[in-house]
Amino acid sequence: MSDRLHNSRFLKAVRREPTDTTPIWIMRQAGRYLPEYMAVRRRVTFMELCKRPDLAAEVTLTAQRVLGVDAAILFADLLPILEPIGLQLEYTAGEGPVIHNPVRDAAGIDALRHLDNVDSLQYVFDAVRLIRRDLPADIPLLGFAGAPFTLASYAIEGGSSKNYANVKRMMYSDSGAWTALMNCLTHSLVKYILAQVEAGCQAIQLFDSWAGCLSPSDYREYVLPHTKAIIDRVKHAAPVINFATGNPALLPLLREGGGDVIGLDWRVDLRDGWKTVGHDVAVQGNLDPITLLTDIPTIRRRALEVLAAAEHRPGHIFNLGHGITPDVPPEHAKALVEIVHELGAT
Amino acid sequence: MSDRLHNSRFLKAVRREPTDTTPIWIMRQAGRYLPEYMAVRRRVTFMELCKRPDLAAEVTLTAQRVLGVDAAILFADLLPILEPIGLQLEYTAGEGPVIHNPVRDAAGIDALRHLDNVDSLQYVFDAVRLIRRDLPADIPLLGFAGAPFTLASYAIEGGSSKNYANVKRMMYSDSGAWTALMNCLTHSLVKYILAQVEAGCQAIQLFDSWAGCLSPSDYREYVLPHTKAIIDRVKHAAPVINFATGNPALLPLLREGGGDVIGLDWRVDLRDGWKTVGHDVAVQGNLDPITLLTDIPTIRRRALEVLAAAEHRPGHIFNLGHGITPDVPPEHAKALVEIVHELGAT
Repeated sequence: MSDRLHNSRFLKAVRREPTDTTPIWIMRQAGRYLPEYMAVRRRVTFMELCKRPDLAAEVTLTAQRVLGVDAAILFADLLPILEPIGLQLEYTAGEGPVIHNPVRDAAGIDALRHLDNVDSLQYVFDAVRLIRRDLPADIPLLGFAGAPFTLASYAIEGGSSKNYANVKRMMYSDSGAWTALMNCLTHSLVKYILAQVEAGCQAIQLFDSWAGCLSPSDYREYVLPHTKAIIDRVKHAAPVINFATGNPALLPLLREGGGDVIGLDWRVDLRDGWKTVGHDVAVQGNLDPITLLTDIPTIRRRALEVLAAAEHRPGHIFNLGHGITPDVPPEHAKALVEIVHELGAT
Repeated sequence: MSDRLHNSRFLKAVRREPTDTTPIWIMRQAGRYLPEYMAVRRRVTFMELCKRPDLAAEVTLTAQRVLGVDAAILFADLLPILEPIGLQLEYTAGEGPVIHNPVRDAAGIDALRHLDNVDSLQYVFDAVRLIRRDLPADIPLLGFAGAPFTLASYAIEGGSSKNYANVKRMMYSDSGAWTALMNCLTHSLVKYILAQVEAGCQAIQLFDSWAGCLSPSDYREYVLPHTKAIIDRVKHAAPVINFATGNPALLPLLREGGGDVIGLDWRVDLRDGWKTVGHDVAVQGNLDPITLLTDIPTIRRRALEVLAAAEHRPGHIFNLGHGITPDVPPEHAKALVEIVHELGAT
């Protein structure tokens, strides 16, 4: 890695080294709120965008440039890795992602493929190479993967779910099948993440969108060993941001799982969340995303509250507590970046 | 109150007195999973059922009798109180509750009525009287009201919401309007709850379905004063179960809000949750509701885990961590009640 990348604001914060100001990026920063993104989406479907390296690179680079954020994040979805594993994925206009052959039992899980190579996901790595080539030399590129629980929940439910009934039924009453599925996903995710790093990512965000539906004891028994195994096997290659949303009671277990950075969603006060995971790890977060729908004075006031909770401690990466919503005025997102850079300066 | 009610298993647990075994009731116990309930619903709409005291009493009493639970809970919905306040409520088949005239600004909120009497909700109090008349003499009847945040979120969003954008926008950027709405709801809820107690309820569950979307600091600033005001003004009349779902980080603030019993959802381990709110208050919970979709050995194993976490400490009321789901086999719910009574015996 170049010195400029190594000494970037973002990677210094990952290592809990002092920075000139607080680094910031925004989850889903290359998303539907940006007119430049929507212009691309008028030409291609979501799946085509994921699979066209030139377009994935374009939206990734545009978002970083327009916002002035301290990191780019690969435009990619959580779910395409499920295709080579054997699941038939479709993005429908109304319902979001649908898996046409969800797995509900041991036989279905036995039929899945453990990825020994990830050649079928080459379009992701091609996008990484294109982005890294054109990204400013001091801006890290983050890779991105779904955590195994979230991927398992899509594989079992066949789409998003209100209460994860099928997932939990398997987890609670057929732990053999559950473990087999999690092992398959873990094995495949390690290859996928290492290939993203190999292609040019400087860090990885592991994102457990739905783990918050679990109690700590269930997370510990059914999820933690798998997430920890992934982080243990990729951490030599790149730092990991370990992020799960929806349940602050899981934070001590996220820390046990590992990662150089623990993501905090907005449901916890950053001061308490950082204390819970320990000041010997960096944290990312955690402005309530809806703040960006208000007005700039309110954004400023609430961003300052998050910064104050971080107490200028090295190792705070500013972000929203979840992805930016589609109806945010782009000037509000840009203003947030400027506000954080201004107020975060030490 | 009669001695038999006063010394009932449920009310002893509310007071943290020792009981012969752990009391249990099930949130939404008179719900769609019960064939007796569905038989009534085939004859009337949901709204008609809420407004027909004879039928509301029938489903309430049937559920208590069929399950053998230690408390009955008034069959009622959170939202009908919004009608006399001035909101046009409809239950649609597909979308759930819809409010046709949601309030989005100060003018809309000024036009709402603060209930000085609750005569228009007489059907609720009539149901309470019918239920109390026919309920076994040692079975308490719980009243039921939505907490002001949850009612405000329906009033503003006009229905259920994914991210509470309109609610939070008002809360964050127009605190005057927000406070006016919460004051209106608080004023009206106090009257409503006191009238339920007057009609014959022995305790009240105050249910904040959606408060979990808030950070602790936002809950403290925008919600806690109102919930606390309600509890302060009704607690002399009946004990209160203070329950909010979706965010274990709010538990210390629920305790600050008050209540003889703090409800725990399943996202926290009961042992930790009870420690967090303090052993000088009773707790209710918190089996993951999906457990009831598995099988009886799994239900037994997981119910035992909850009981073990309570350590036979007086003041544990067993419940699910959220409402029972419509697809639960009724024999699983009955088995849970038997299991808790068997394993909870000291």
